[in-house]
Amino acid sequence: MSPFDALLQEARAHLDHVIQIERGSTPMTDDFQGWERRDKPPTLFRRFAFAQYGQTRAFLDALSALSEELQRHPQNINFGTTYVNVTVGAADGATLSAEDERFAGRIATLAERGE
Amino acid sequence: MSPFDALLQEARAHLDHVIQIERGSTPMTDDFQGWERRDKPPTLFRRFAFAQYGQTRAFLDALSALSEELQRHPQNINFGTTYVNVTVGAADGATLSAEDERFAGRIATLAERGE
Repeated sequence: MSPFDALLQEARAHLDHVIQIERGSTPMTDDFQGWERRDKPPTLFRRFAFAQYGQTRAFLDALSALSEELQRHPQNINFGTTYVNVTVGAADGATLSAEDERFAGRIATLAERGE
Repeated sequence: MSPFDALLQEARAHLDHVIQIERGSTPMTDDFQGWERRDKPPTLFRRFAFAQYGQTRAFLDALSALSEELQRHPQNINFGTTYVNVTVGAADGATLSAEDERFAGRIATLAERGE
């Protein structure tokens, strides 16, 4: 990927986020340790950036292993070669709980090895 | 206009287009064997649905292996437990080529095992 493409991809991800906010699915407040709380439905969102694909891949693999261990998956994972956007939904589908925050916290721990 | 502004403008145009598609105001035409051609920038997009997570995971793993083999990655992969949305960009960053279609075709072949 050229530096221009990487920059464009980054701008795009940012704009996706801005558009979600503009659509009213969000005011961004009350971060949980680096995660944004979003509404409708309630989710925790966080973007992880990596210097190179190997790190991105290692994070994705660790996330898969964690999901299988916990029998729980993020609601959505959106990634390119050097970034992973993770959305964690409420386990009960309605309200974010301390358990959801623990899950998000464990995901963030996996990324610290790669970032 | 600064380079960043130009980039932002381009990204915005792209997202406007995506939003139009999502709202159904832009019908997708000229499919390449199940892939939608999108513009600004040119990409091939396809959604793969699976019955269960194990199949989703198998597809993602096969896609990672293919990417490493070819030293080429989709521009973006967006997935949840039972779906994977794949966006393939133009290898030259400007125009979709037969090579890009071959790459997309190989990705689709991986999914046929799981779907």
